[in-house]
Amino acid sequence: MKIEFTKMHGAGNDYIYVNTLKYPLVQPETFAKEWSKPHTGIGSDGLVLIGPSEKGDFSMRIFNADGSEAMMCGNASRCVGKYLYEYGLTDKKEIALETLSGIKTLYLHLQGENVDSVTVDMGAPRDIRTVDLGNGYLFREGTTVNMGNPHLVIFTHDVSAIDLLSEGPSMEHHPLFPNRVNVEFAQILPDGNIRMRVWERGSGITQACGTGACATAVAAAFTGRGKGKTDIIMDGGTLTIEYQPQNDRILMTGPATKVFDGTINMDR
Amino acid sequence: MKIEFTKMHGAGNDYIYVNTLKYPLVQPETFAKEWSKPHTGIGSDGLVLIGPSEKGDFSMRIFNADGSEAMMCGNASRCVGKYLYEYGLTDKKEIALETLSGIKTLYLHLQGENVDSVTVDMGAPRDIRTVDLGNGYLFREGTTVNMGNPHLVIFTHDVSAIDLLSEGPSMEHHPLFPNRVNVEFAQILPDGNIRMRVWERGSGITQACGTGACATAVAAAFTGRGKGKTDIIMDGGTLTIEYQPQNDRILMTGPATKVFDGTINMDR
Repeated sequence: MKIEFTKMHGAGNDYIYVNTLKYPLVQPETFAKEWSKPHTGIGSDGLVLIGPSEKGDFSMRIFNADGSEAMMCGNASRCVGKYLYEYGLTDKKEIALETLSGIKTLYLHLQGENVDSVTVDMGAPRDIRTVDLGNGYLFREGTTVNMGNPHLVIFTHDVSAIDLLSEGPSMEHHPLFPNRVNVEFAQILPDGNIRMRVWERGSGITQACGTGACATAVAAAFTGRGKGKTDIIMDGGTLTIEYQPQNDRILMTGPATKVFDGTINMDR
Repeated sequence: MKIEFTKMHGAGNDYIYVNTLKYPLVQPETFAKEWSKPHTGIGSDGLVLIGPSEKGDFSMRIFNADGSEAMMCGNASRCVGKYLYEYGLTDKKEIALETLSGIKTLYLHLQGENVDSVTVDMGAPRDIRTVDLGNGYLFREGTTVNMGNPHLVIFTHDVSAIDLLSEGPSMEHHPLFPNRVNVEFAQILPDGNIRMRVWERGSGITQACGTGACATAVAAAFTGRGKGKTDIIMDGGTLTIEYQPQNDRILMTGPATKVFDGTINMDR
């Protein structure tokens, strides 16, 4: 049986998107592993299933390249918004998307008939606090922020000087975080925007991380470094984060880009 | 404008295949670079153009991920054979394919209506000789074989112990090879077949290399290590190489696998 899919990326974070209303996929973890492989598969960071929802307008499930299921991914949710509108599953520009970490509201920004960028209401940050990393580490202090997944944000004067391959794992496995942690190294730029590099728990260096960008903006505000609306500049692209402490919510705006449409044979 | 493409791989060596009889591509080097990118592009080792030929039945042009044009690729030529037959461009099972390094004959092996594997007449090896690599290198001796592109084959007792990331570039840029060289590290197995790992000139570590597999079988025969028909076992898969010194030719047989069909927008 042949099924259709679409490859899209948000700030360089690329997934294979399948409309399960049309193609129900059993054992998605198996396909996520097989299809994500670079040379013999389609190649991606994982597989995203777009489906129906009783609580919201639509649902999203995310399977990483290793087959594990992710709670939420800001970059993927923007692409889901683009997919739903451009493939005619909805004509709404405000969509309630059910995810494993609750309903997320998407606000689509159109350019002509196409969705150019999407704002996602990422909900409220939790567990915001300054932590003492102790001696024996390159940095003494960090800020933890939980965005549905745990983050540790470390500010530095020159983020390009960080050896991510050694500092990332060192912080991910720091004894303060028995369940490990996503790590962001961030530098405040002269205009108040933030250059950030991320080490994702279980994935390592990635091009961009939506929840990490949110955590970084929250940590900047919490430590008195931030401004209301901040561009977070990552290797894969830039996300604009608006932290509204008064409403206890974070709005993340960024691009959603379609790469190609494909068909693949499922029975090989 | 939307164009159709097919992603195929031969022993893990994956290219984007475009039928230029249907979609003439100007500036293919630009598309090769853009489309080969893993996260924001289609992701591949490069772009292969299938077109008409005055000298043979069809032609093949190969553009690497960096946009440079390759002379010939055995793994790609097998996939071209599969494409030509399965997409109805020919019903021949013996195809004369024009490449930058001359006409190569393809012999298709069918399983039902599908092409399961393909044998490629890779022509005659040239410049076969033992070279002294000098002092200061991990190995003192190698065998050069030109298969349209230059190869250096080095035999060792344990190919898994080779640090390809350091030994590969060291040999690629060895002063003996001012135009650089593809490097194969090869180990004769108890059954006479050969385990091989490759460092490709300009590409680095790859899953498999068709001309490298041929060069390895020739070098084995030349140095008295070989047998007539040898399996060359690489990370991405196995190729069967039959060296016929009496006919001065090499037959390479291996799989050709279709991954998916896609359409991509060219004007972005």
